[in-house]
Amino acid sequence: MSGYLPGRHFLQIPGPTNVPDRVLRALAAPTIDHRGPEFGRLTKEVLAGLQRIVKTTGPVIIFPSSGTGAWEAALVNTLSPGDTVLMFETGQFATLWRGVAIRLGLSVDFVPGDWRHGVDPGAVEERLTKDRGHQVKAVCVVHNETSTGVASRVDEVRQAMERARHPALLLVDTISSLASMDYRHDEWQVDVTVSCSQKGLMLPPGLGINAVSQKALKASEAAKLPRSYWRWEEMLKPNQSGFFPYTPATNLLYGLREALRMLQEEGLDAVFARHARHGEAARRAVQAWGLDLQCLDPQEYSSSLTAVRVPEGHDADAFRKIVLERFNMSLGNGLGKVQGRVFRIGHLGDFNDLMLVGTLGGIEMGLSLAGVPHKKGGVQAALDSLEAGR
Amino acid sequence: MSGYLPGRHFLQIPGPTNVPDRVLRALAAPTIDHRGPEFGRLTKEVLAGLQRIVKTTGPVIIFPSSGTGAWEAALVNTLSPGDTVLMFETGQFATLWRGVAIRLGLSVDFVPGDWRHGVDPGAVEERLTKDRGHQVKAVCVVHNETSTGVASRVDEVRQAMERARHPALLLVDTISSLASMDYRHDEWQVDVTVSCSQKGLMLPPGLGINAVSQKALKASEAAKLPRSYWRWEEMLKPNQSGFFPYTPATNLLYGLREALRMLQEEGLDAVFARHARHGEAARRAVQAWGLDLQCLDPQEYSSSLTAVRVPEGHDADAFRKIVLERFNMSLGNGLGKVQGRVFRIGHLGDFNDLMLVGTLGGIEMGLSLAGVPHKKGGVQAALDSLEAGR
Amino acid sequence: MSGYLPGRHFLQIPGPTNVPDRVLRALAAPTIDHRGPEFGRLTKEVLAGLQRIVKTTGPVIIFPSSGTGAWEAALVNTLSPGDTVLMFETGQFATLWRGVAIRLGLSVDFVPGDWRHGVDPGAVEERLTKDRGHQVKAVCVVHNETSTGVASRVDEVRQAMERARHPALLLVDTISSLASMDYRHDEWQVDVTVSCSQKGLMLPPGLGINAVSQKALKASEAAKLPRSYWRWEEMLKPNQSGFFPYTPATNLLYGLREALRMLQEEGLDAVFARHARHGEAARRAVQAWGLDLQCLDPQEYSSSLTAVRVPEGHDADAFRKIVLERFNMSLGNGLGKVQGRVFRIGHLGDFNDLMLVGTLGGIEMGLSLAGVPHKKGGVQAALDSLEAGR
Amino acid sequence: MSGYLPGRHFLQIPGPTNVPDRVLRALAAPTIDHRGPEFGRLTKEVLAGLQRIVKTTGPVIIFPSSGTGAWEAALVNTLSPGDTVLMFETGQFATLWRGVAIRLGLSVDFVPGDWRHGVDPGAVEERLTKDRGHQVKAVCVVHNETSTGVASRVDEVRQAMERARHPALLLVDTISSLASMDYRHDEWQVDVTVSCSQKGLMLPPGLGINAVSQKALKASEAAKLPRSYWRWEEMLKPNQSGFFPYTPATNLLYGLREALRMLQEEGLDAVFARHARHGEAARRAVQAWGLDLQCLDPQEYSSSLTAVRVPEGHDADAFRKIVLERFNMSLGNGLGKVQGRVFRIGHLGDFNDLMLVGTLGGIEMGLSLAGVPHKKGGVQAALDSLEAGR
Repeated sequence: MSGYLPGRHFLQIPGPTNVPDRVLRALAAPTIDHRGPEFGRLTKEVLAGLQRIVKTTGPVIIFPSSGTGAWEAALVNTLSPGDTVLMFETGQFATLWRGVAIRLGLSVDFVPGDWRHGVDPGAVEERLTKDRGHQVKAVCVVHNETSTGVASRVDEVRQAMERARHPALLLVDTISSLASMDYRHDEWQVDVTVSCSQKGLMLPPGLGINAVSQKALKASEAAKLPRSYWRWEEMLKPNQSGFFPYTPATNLLYGLREALRMLQEEGLDAVFARHARHGEAARRAVQAWGLDLQCLDPQEYSSSLTAVRVPEGHDADAFRKIVLERFNMSLGNGLGKVQGRVFRIGHLGDFNDLMLVGTLGGIEMGLSLAGVPHKKGGVQAALDSLEAGR
Repeated sequence: MSGYLPGRHFLQIPGPTNVPDRVLRALAAPTIDHRGPEFGRLTKEVLAGLQRIVKTTGPVIIFPSSGTGAWEAALVNTLSPGDTVLMFETGQFATLWRGVAIRLGLSVDFVPGDWRHGVDPGAVEERLTKDRGHQVKAVCVVHNETSTGVASRVDEVRQAMERARHPALLLVDTISSLASMDYRHDEWQVDVTVSCSQKGLMLPPGLGINAVSQKALKASEAAKLPRSYWRWEEMLKPNQSGFFPYTPATNLLYGLREALRMLQEEGLDAVFARHARHGEAARRAVQAWGLDLQCLDPQEYSSSLTAVRVPEGHDADAFRKIVLERFNMSLGNGLGKVQGRVFRIGHLGDFNDLMLVGTLGGIEMGLSLAGVPHKKGGVQAALDSLEAGR
Repeated sequence: MSGYLPGRHFLQIPGPTNVPDRVLRALAAPTIDHRGPEFGRLTKEVLAGLQRIVKTTGPVIIFPSSGTGAWEAALVNTLSPGDTVLMFETGQFATLWRGVAIRLGLSVDFVPGDWRHGVDPGAVEERLTKDRGHQVKAVCVVHNETSTGVASRVDEVRQAMERARHPALLLVDTISSLASMDYRHDEWQVDVTVSCSQKGLMLPPGLGINAVSQKALKASEAAKLPRSYWRWEEMLKPNQSGFFPYTPATNLLYGLREALRMLQEEGLDAVFARHARHGEAARRAVQAWGLDLQCLDPQEYSSSLTAVRVPEGHDADAFRKIVLERFNMSLGNGLGKVQGRVFRIGHLGDFNDLMLVGTLGGIEMGLSLAGVPHKKGGVQAALDSLEAGR
Repeated sequence: MSGYLPGRHFLQIPGPTNVPDRVLRALAAPTIDHRGPEFGRLTKEVLAGLQRIVKTTGPVIIFPSSGTGAWEAALVNTLSPGDTVLMFETGQFATLWRGVAIRLGLSVDFVPGDWRHGVDPGAVEERLTKDRGHQVKAVCVVHNETSTGVASRVDEVRQAMERARHPALLLVDTISSLASMDYRHDEWQVDVTVSCSQKGLMLPPGLGINAVSQKALKASEAAKLPRSYWRWEEMLKPNQSGFFPYTPATNLLYGLREALRMLQEEGLDAVFARHARHGEAARRAVQAWGLDLQCLDPQEYSSSLTAVRVPEGHDADAFRKIVLERFNMSLGNGLGKVQGRVFRIGHLGDFNDLMLVGTLGGIEMGLSLAGVPHKKGGVQAALDSLEAGR
């Protein structure tokens, strides 16, 4: 219908991210027998690779699902009907996770927030200290709020829990942080890490991930929420020999193997440093344009994405539409409370300096075409930052 | 490590099936924004295409999941804790579905079976007639038992339900029959059709499917089983404009679009006739070898796969291992009760006469190499059948 | 060994160009019988498509070869040993074509040049007017000098030939201009158009192209240079029914079909306008940096590439190495006489505004890292130009 | 237009062969800079790999061309206008090579043949012994005649040349034998080995190959045929550092790298044994059908293909058309003198037992559908042969 839009599409939403060619070609390998010997080797390789990414020696579980399924899996395996969970309104995804919990029959203590800050470790400590009866069975934290570009400090949340001497489980959503920002499942004593394929892991959507502590496994024995598809114990036994209780998403696992190899080739620390440098450069551009970051606290800046506020009276979605049509670039929209007020720049996954420069160039031109008041010089500021940050 | 096995692998398990090149290449297209306009068009095309395959004018829902997830979705959307469902022990997959129901807290009336017959419509009528209080809320039928190669007559089951004037829902697993054998959701008044991507739809695994009647939708309003990921109502609204409540499996949807186009190019009736001809030729080969079919009733023969019994004292898995190593072909193993006693020949999906001849040739040579007593001439019998059946 | 370089490689040499995903996936289709009916349809589609691109109603010939082969084909089909051809030293590729002519036993009248200008139509007229005996059998012009970014005005060359009333053939190399810059085989009365796959046609290398006028065909009947592989007449007959005298490069032809469809979707005029806008923006960047363009005459600016001179005492190749290693971008090197003195920015083929911005950003940062004296602001100048040029 | 033909196409012409998925996906990698460091490593790997296949320690040269181009290259690099070459009418390809020689201005001594035998070493000795003045500058042998399925004994030809103490060069076409049948460039003292990509090397067409002896290199210094594109010396120098004098067919070289790795994984001796076993089984099938092989001498049977004669009064092409339309299989047609009289079964390249069984099954059914008189039992005979030959 409409003509071909030349050149590579810039997929700068904060996930799904630009899937590298190597991964796309890996996906296109012929499907094999999920009960055969070759498949067993594939499974073992990807599970071991994910352990290295999550930084755990414990089990990792892969579901054929979206990340939303991995949220649900974390809850239904560890909790019983009516259990209380402590959640924090850091943004749209925290709010959605809360919705999952409610629909599953849990009681949610939802700490209100302004969508511009992460989880306050002090608030965690205070709440849990007051919870003498240990009604709270789990603390649920979104590590990196994909709707706001605010990163919560998971290690400090864990320390707050320890100060409160509270036995609740710590469940952490790393959907838009895993393999982009530093994350340590074992060291931070996270009980369930929730993630998925289409962000830092550089895959298309279709795989949900849980990494599980011994404490969480123990909790799952007593947990009474009905579960079948998401049932960890059904997974863990066949996984040991490289198999699955039901048909896994074969071709996405090929892609995962390739992506894990690529992350290893680059080196996880290099991956984190790269994302940090890109986050910094993107924020410099935003500041040069004279626009506001959604994230207010510099210690909570995200390396994966930058959410930018448009001035009052301007529509972020109208701007995004112009950018898509004129520059063949998808930017993330404002979600929930900040719809139309915010646009989001994804700079995670298989990304490099020149892609960022192109991305910021498209935004700078788009702001102008959309009539959004701003100063020029954002791209130049990013160039200066990138050059300095090498 | 081990050397390259030359030539095309023969993936003759009854699913995942041989994914056609066109679909594999479609999978490898760059991932796009699942909230953008291009994606909306994709969604609408695949949903409309699935309606044609399932033969319904009602809604079809696609989950990022395996077929097991689609089983679960059918149950949790329509039933309440403690509800009774009527199930039939037609084989391993019927038994697994029962396990899902039990884990979700349903009460299962499981009619025993010998794994060599389909659902007996007479038994359905009898059971439901006796159920004066309408305790049974759903009748669950596996259309084509992938573990046995036995096809139940869904239309006759529906007629039996009508004769019993019973209001139970009819839930049908079409996982290994859809797009391979005649199936009519609307005409047979099926309430939930359960299916998935990796069989007749010629895709890799990763998509679960529900087609839903108005009666099932109505039931979902009252159903009390907790559900979030699988919740139909969350899907139906955004689906109307081409979107999903959570990130869909983008690249598998590309593959689905291509596969649906291919099925349309060939013509659904031609697809069914092809599968029927291949089923017939495969059974002729088995009979010529002097081996027994697992399926005892000719009116219940499957067009998708043929399960073959090996003589007493012989191990079907040892035979399969030889076939894999010597002939680069994967055959289906015996599952559950028939492990080691049965092997299964998948002849569904993107398959043609010469692939079948090669498949049967590998079996005939493999039987000989494995020392399984048999007569020669199976391939010849299949050739004669294929030639006659054109 | 060396780590993975994240993100999309920027292949900004002036060809091979960034091959679009659609074309790459088309290449990966299974090879078919080059004597079968499906192949015949493929051939006819690509030949007709090339006619539209070259703007001719006459025959187009595709060789399994590089562009160098297409140069050779143009000469051996039209000329006899010892014939004189008039060539112009516009740069490295004109010089290489001359080498081909000499090796084939032709006599070359090579008009010297400074590598910063195109063919001077006045010089053509003058030379040919003096050639009363019509010793010159062919005038060979490189439309777009890939080594310098200078475009010769082919239509004015033809007009000069007409003013001189000279019967020589006009052979034109469009290797780096075809499908990027306006070109009209029939209207400009070109006798042989020489081209290849890996530039504006957005394919990998491997196809050489000749478009041939009736006059050239007539000349080929008398031409005495030995030829077999490149023999037009052997091609033309089987081509009419969609076949080739020897095995064609099947999979590259799949890619060509896809590329031609994409060019048609975008529209050839839109393609030219896009290249022109990118050329303009690139030159603005160079000027803002305070660097010199290799091309001195604005009416000869190339839309396909921009060749940039580095200041005396600086090494363009050292700069290019830094750009490759730090920014994952390949820039074109200086060739022949300008080695080390020039780098080349390819902005042709499947390319868009944001790719150009990224490209220029990498150059600006690279100049700084390499210590090449320059002013900042090149990217900003390009942004301004792009925005103005929409 | 016509509907989708389900299942994998059987490409059983004697080349292009069924390209393995790994190679197809390798082809689809993004095109890179042919002057960059990564490319240099690619070139060196594929040249070294080809040396192992051709069994030489001398140079191997790759042209972006078909095999026909590699024929031409062998001639123009070693010979001068008017030179005499000794050629043998073993079939269509020998005849075509002769055409190339004639068009290039060589004098061909063409020893007549019946298209059912290979080169007679005795005839070589006799001719060369008589050629006291050493008029014959090269002996040209087609190792495996792709039009007839007859393999000439190159080692015996070399021995005959030695017995005649004749200094002529030995040029050998291995187009349909290389990487399928035993071949030893150095040991047999071949001077130029001619080959290409689309047969045993399992690639699409587009690469021509020459392996060159020191004697041939020496001859090239004196050879006077005009040459530019095919000029070895221009290739050899840049090849040493991994580069090419003109743009090479990048993506086909990716495929070549993958194919060479696969051949090494399987092991060259295993590759030869596999082809021999398939040739034997195919001939057993033909004999069981009661049809005649085109090749009359068992010591000249080809392992790559089997040419089969249809009985008088029947049309091989009508039969082939039925096989294509009904069974989605391409068989090779009769070429030149045997058009309509012969069909050819390609069983070379990426091929295995079950593909062969399917191939032969399609032929057996096709013979019946086409009304070609034959006995049943060919597939059965092949199964017996394959089983015995393991």
